[in-house]
Order: sequence, then structure tokens, then C-alpha cells
Amino acid sequence: MSEALAIVAEVEKNLFELPARDALSGKRILVTSGPTREPIDPVRYISNHSSGKQGHALARMAAQAGAEVVLVSGPVALPDPSGVKTIRVETAEQMLNASENALPADAAIFAAAVADWRVAKEAAQKMKKQEGKLPSLSFAENPDILATISRHSNLRPRLVIGFAAETENLIENARAKLNKKGCDWIVANDVSTGTSTFGGGSNEVHIVTRDAVESWPMQTKDAVAAGLVKKIAATLGGAR
Amino acid sequence: MSEALAIVAEVEKNLFELPARDALSGKRILVTSGPTREPIDPVRYISNHSSGKQGHALARMAAQAGAEVVLVSGPVALPDPSGVKTIRVETAEQMLNASENALPADAAIFAAAVADWRVAKEAAQKMKKQEGKLPSLSFAENPDILATISRHSNLRPRLVIGFAAETENLIENARAKLNKKGCDWIVANDVSTGTSTFGGGSNEVHIVTRDAVESWPMQTKDAVAAGLVKKIAATLGGAR
Repeated sequence: MSEALAIVAEVEKNLFELPARDALSGKRILVTSGPTREPIDPVRYISNHSSGKQGHALARMAAQAGAEVVLVSGPVALPDPSGVKTIRVETAEQMLNASENALPADAAIFAAAVADWRVAKEAAQKMKKQEGKLPSLSFAENPDILATISRHSNLRPRLVIGFAAETENLIENARAKLNKKGCDWIVANDVSTGTSTFGGGSNEVHIVTRDAVESWPMQTKDAVAAGLVKKIAATLGGAR
Repeated sequence: MSEALAIVAEVEKNLFELPARDALSGKRILVTSGPTREPIDPVRYISNHSSGKQGHALARMAAQAGAEVVLVSGPVALPDPSGVKTIRVETAEQMLNASENALPADAAIFAAAVADWRVAKEAAQKMKKQEGKLPSLSFAENPDILATISRHSNLRPRLVIGFAAETENLIENARAKLNKKGCDWIVANDVSTGTSTFGGGSNEVHIVTRDAVESWPMQTKDAVAAGLVKKIAATLGGAR
């Protein structure tokens, strides 16, 4: 390790405890990150404010803990993390395909903010503005990536983790989501408070499992990633 | 000028002719750039693929030619150009306000890809996915920034330039836009060809005026910016 890296590692240790370097060795981890973009026409699209910071931090941290990591990322302004196989996609359908192709995996972490809906019929030409006429868009439901992988007939990862960004009834909505999707954990955060914001550097998360809720303090997204990687390693067991 | 800058200037000169360093001195130029983002709810939005590369190149080039430049930019992944007063906005309404506040100006270049429509009622809470229920969005027309400034009662810039990204009938659509909006020039490009792409580095543009069309070859966005700044300087006259 270079001197600069050693200093960075020391600073990080003072802020939060990093996972052991072999905590996930021999494990294969799928991470999704960022928003999806659903086209309206050749120039317009629907998206959301996900920056990809939390998902990318998770991918990087899992790789640093020795895992073989596949990161499926929507369009973000972040560089591809080093040591991670990164696949860039745009739409929810592309993200599902790339995620299914990345299986089998020991754990899958769905940190991407996937659009629930897409526009039913993408216009082949740019929609022209017409005097006094407003567009009408009809929608189609997107594939549910979290539910699809959670209920995968033969390649379900041992540990499937979803994320929920909520603006109200945080824990109840997260528990309902966990039961409906069939995943093992939901990492829930409240995006209405202005503290756990999309795009920001910090996150106050609650880890909702079938029978418990762990509420973590407000901390950096790197610290959340470290905590999750340690919890994943403890759950998967093995090499550590 | 530092040695590195001198080399860069030399390389640029070999590719295209830069405007004279005082071509726009004493002139005040307003430039808009990038997409707008129109919120659907606290996390979702509608936007478009504009990267802001052409608008930012114009702002930078105008400043290098001695102009006092105000750049009103939607959300882009580009740094604020040095020597340019940059105002960051999200929505079309914010972009109009910031543009009006930047007047008076000798010329205004509307390179931003402004959303024609916004969602009529932004949801205060995140729209929840419900079984078998698709959302319906109703739209409202956004303010027309180009037409508003082109027809400004007392602060209309002497030269008002719009952009048109078209996928069909390029020149006819651009001429119709020029007449409808009341601007002086339309810089039209065909975004359907895969050559003048949103986000790409090159542009093949046509400068449509009331009585002429100039078609420029495919070139870098910096070269297009240099050409436009020279044409603007020749039109405004003065210090040069």
C-alpha cells in the first residue's frame, strides 16, 4: 500500500471501521446503482434524482473486502469503481437483463432507483410542441427487478437486499415492500427530511429484516456501505 | 499566457480559427445551456439528453473573446466555465427568471433544451406503486423563454439566437420556429442522424436567419462555438 493510501485508510478508520480485507473473499456480489432512464421520445426521458453514490460505495467496499463484484449501473456522473466489473445500462428492462446475466451470486444488493413505470410507447420522432395541445403519456409497468431476483426459480442469491427511499411511513412501507418482494433485507431511508437526500453524501438508514429493525445513525454513504458489507459478511459466513 | 495555455491555443488554431481576443469586448452576452428538469414528485422528474456541451462551449468562447458572459445552466455534469458568471437552475420557470434577471444584454443565445411541458401538479409525496394501477400525468405548458425574450417589451437584446434540435424536416421546422418566436437566428441540428447527437462532441449545424440558411460542416462543438461567436461579433460590430 502506498503512503497516500495508508493515510487515507487511517483517516477512514478514524471515521468508521472498514470490513476485513478478506471478509467477502470467495463471494460473488451483484450490486445495482443509480437511476434508470425511461425514454419518452428520442430526446426526452423520465428519470429520478438517484446519484448512484450509495450503490457505487457498496460495490467498491465489497470489492475491497475481497468479493468479486458486478455493478449494474444506470446513468450516473461517477467513475466506474476500480476492481469492479461495471455494466452501464439505461432502462429498467436493460437493468433486469444485466442483473439476471450476472447470476449466480452469493448476495445481490439492489441499490438502484429503478423507475416503476415506463412510457408505454416511445415516440420514434421528437414530440413537437403544438399550439394549445398538451401531450398525454400512457404508462406501462416496468419489470420488478427486486421481486424477480428474489423469486428466481433456480438462481436466487442466498441474500437479497432491496432499498426503499420513502417520504412517509418509512418502516411500515419498508416492511410491506420486504414481504411483497420476497427479499431478505430492506435498507430504508427517508428522502423527505433533507438529511438522507438523493445526491447527498450522507444517509440515515434503517435495516428492516423479517423480524427486526436496526436503525443506524446519520453517517456518510461510505460508512453505510462499510456497515452493510460487514453485516453481509457476517450473514454469509465463510472465508472470514 | 502560460506555456501550456500557449500550446493549447496553438493546437486549437490548427483546428479552427479562434475569434479575436477583443471580438466581443464591451459586449454582454446571455447564454442558456443544458436540459431543464421538471419534477413529477420529490424523487422523479422529466428531462432530456442535452449535455450542455454546446452551450458551455459558447459561453467559454464568448468570454475568451472579451464579452461579459452570464450562463444560465440546467443540471449538467460540466464544470462552470472560468471567467463566466454561471447560474444553476433546474426548471424552465427558474431558467426564464434567471434569464430575465440577466438582461439587459447585447446578445442572448438560448442553447438550453428547455422542456416544453411540466407536470401540472407536482406530487408532494413520492408516488407509490400500486398493484395494477398506472399513473396518469397531466401536463401544463412551460413558459417559452426564447419567445418571451425575443418579444421583451423594453429589454430585448439586439441579437436573439435560438437552437432547434430536430429529427425531421430540419430547415422548415427551424424557419417556422424563427418566425413564431420572433428571434433573429435559429441554430438547427439534426439529432436523428447519430452524428449531431445530444451528449456527443460534434455538431453539424445550419444557421437559419430570416432570409438565408448557412450550412456548416460537421465539426467539434468548440468549433461551432467559435464560428457563432465570430458571426455574432460581426453582427454586433463595435470594439473589434
